[in-house]
Amino acid sequence: MNEWIKNIRKVVPYTAGEQPNRPNMIKLNTNECPYSPAPGVEKVIKEMDVEKFRLYPNMEGRPLIDKIARYYGVDTDMVFAGVGSDDVIANAFLTFFNSDKPIFFPDITYSFYPVWADLYGVKYETKKLDKDFRMVKEDYYEPNGGIIFPNPNAPTSVYESLETIRDILEHNKDSIVIVDEAYIDFGGESALPLLAEYENLLIVQTFSKSRSMAGMRIGFAIGNEVLIKAMNDVKYSINSYTLNMTSIAAGCAAVEDKEYFETTCQKIIDTREKSKKIMSDMGFEFPDSKANFIFATHKDYDITKLYQFLRTKDIYVRHWDSPKIKDYLRITIGTDAQMEVLFEAIKEFMKISK
Amino acid sequence: MNEWIKNIRKVVPYTAGEQPNRPNMIKLNTNECPYSPAPGVEKVIKEMDVEKFRLYPNMEGRPLIDKIARYYGVDTDMVFAGVGSDDVIANAFLTFFNSDKPIFFPDITYSFYPVWADLYGVKYETKKLDKDFRMVKEDYYEPNGGIIFPNPNAPTSVYESLETIRDILEHNKDSIVIVDEAYIDFGGESALPLLAEYENLLIVQTFSKSRSMAGMRIGFAIGNEVLIKAMNDVKYSINSYTLNMTSIAAGCAAVEDKEYFETTCQKIIDTREKSKKIMSDMGFEFPDSKANFIFATHKDYDITKLYQFLRTKDIYVRHWDSPKIKDYLRITIGTDAQMEVLFEAIKEFMKISK
Repeated sequence: MNEWIKNIRKVVPYTAGEQPNRPNMIKLNTNECPYSPAPGVEKVIKEMDVEKFRLYPNMEGRPLIDKIARYYGVDTDMVFAGVGSDDVIANAFLTFFNSDKPIFFPDITYSFYPVWADLYGVKYETKKLDKDFRMVKEDYYEPNGGIIFPNPNAPTSVYESLETIRDILEHNKDSIVIVDEAYIDFGGESALPLLAEYENLLIVQTFSKSRSMAGMRIGFAIGNEVLIKAMNDVKYSINSYTLNMTSIAAGCAAVEDKEYFETTCQKIIDTREKSKKIMSDMGFEFPDSKANFIFATHKDYDITKLYQFLRTKDIYVRHWDSPKIKDYLRITIGTDAQMEVLFEAIKEFMKISK
Repeated sequence: MNEWIKNIRKVVPYTAGEQPNRPNMIKLNTNECPYSPAPGVEKVIKEMDVEKFRLYPNMEGRPLIDKIARYYGVDTDMVFAGVGSDDVIANAFLTFFNSDKPIFFPDITYSFYPVWADLYGVKYETKKLDKDFRMVKEDYYEPNGGIIFPNPNAPTSVYESLETIRDILEHNKDSIVIVDEAYIDFGGESALPLLAEYENLLIVQTFSKSRSMAGMRIGFAIGNEVLIKAMNDVKYSINSYTLNMTSIAAGCAAVEDKEYFETTCQKIIDTREKSKKIMSDMGFEFPDSKANFIFATHKDYDITKLYQFLRTKDIYVRHWDSPKIKDYLRITIGTDAQMEVLFEAIKEFMKISK
């Protein structure tokens, strides 16, 4: 073996949801939005001053952070932007989790949290969700070096109330608490109002789901200016220019169109509620989702087989082999038409599996 | 003080070249290209299928890595793409520099190298450039955990021959050697032909300089498939989707237009050679640049004062306060017209400084 090979970092690469790309497939496996970005995005992309590409983009991602600040009614120096919420959260791990004490997050949650913790040498402890996939808030009252959880959680879709989050904050005035709100726009209440009371709260959101722009890689964090300045300092010390010019422009256009945004979210919520009813009637069980996906199991059918069957029909949903959730499918909410095709396929599976 | 503030990472943020943005200013401070991206870039941006933005982009950055591979005549699995060469090199530090021995790089070089080393806990030793800013290749023959240097070097503009690089590789068969070729297209010879002989060689390039797309954040690495697979594994384990859809498309269009690329590089080389002659006549001294900038000093004038004077004329060049290079200015090669305005301003400074 070559000596230099020994110095290569050993990692278990993250297995992302497959990204097959066939014209008639139904792709409900990576929580993308089934609707186009706001019409203004197309306009702004077509009108890009491409000559300017020769210059570096704005380091902070202005004017996007200004627009986000205005939209959410906070100061500009309370907003940080990055290349998707993965980039934003990885930066937050590096910036904020430098304690000797372990950070806490749920045992069933976004699979990147332990990866970033390992990457940056952050000790962590996972806290068990209860049998209904709910957080046990008291577990988070123990001494810790920081807390992070998604709300609603993924892949469970479970939403925790602002009272629960307030209780966790109230018991953690010495820790930085990150609420990852990737799925908050589908019916949950954002923790943004709590920012006025808790300066140790950081909220992270993304343009990949509710704003239909996974392809443009935009995420952001909102928190008090001390937190945001610290994140910017770390970012500038590592890779100063991250958001490219088209992401900044497209992000601005998306934020400007409040009506389109709200209509799109509502359409997904409506389809989700209809889907819940249909799936319930089919005998599926699932937590009450406030996200753009349903995390469902069925007592009478083999979920792995259903997953495989759907693939043969060119319908992709998400399944994990890990012990606690192997009997569940995470089904992204598509259009009404896509969901109908899905439900027909499930019925067919049920018929042949009898 | 709040307890949580203690857990915030302390960093010295990188001070990037200023990015002022006034209509008539002359910006020669961040080595951007004065010419527009290839015409095909505008076309492809205007024709983006914005509806697709709702989907995640291709994780590897295909079809861009395919185009790069074809352009440089290597296999696709020998190419890695990222958000600017900063992203690519940071990933390479994390992936390849995991030895107990220190890595080596020049004492005067790209200021991010020590930052990434510190970030990832990589030990390093800097090796002094000689009085002509040349690398002393024998210094790199000592046992090490890896080697990185830019060729041409920045901010010195000095190009090391392929024989020197071959000698370094020949003495370092147990280390990964990274050649950062951000400025290679302006007259130097790329180390690409050495890839056939040295599987421990990684070459990094960028679209920010010679391909006029700093604003789109595209960088890439070429190396043998073991190195590239290791970089991809690390990338997928941290942040799977980085290059957005417009960067991938714009990058493809730029790579397709070989003639425009070569013409643009030649224009910059021509302007640089003319500028060398003029600056030499003015009494400036500088290493023989093979980059898109000149690193110049002058025996008879106070360089800091010249720098300040140029700013008052809305002409921005780069100056560092650090001891070894405080008497130098790094001047990016602009258009002929921009350089003329610069030289007129320098003459004016010389007149009033007599």
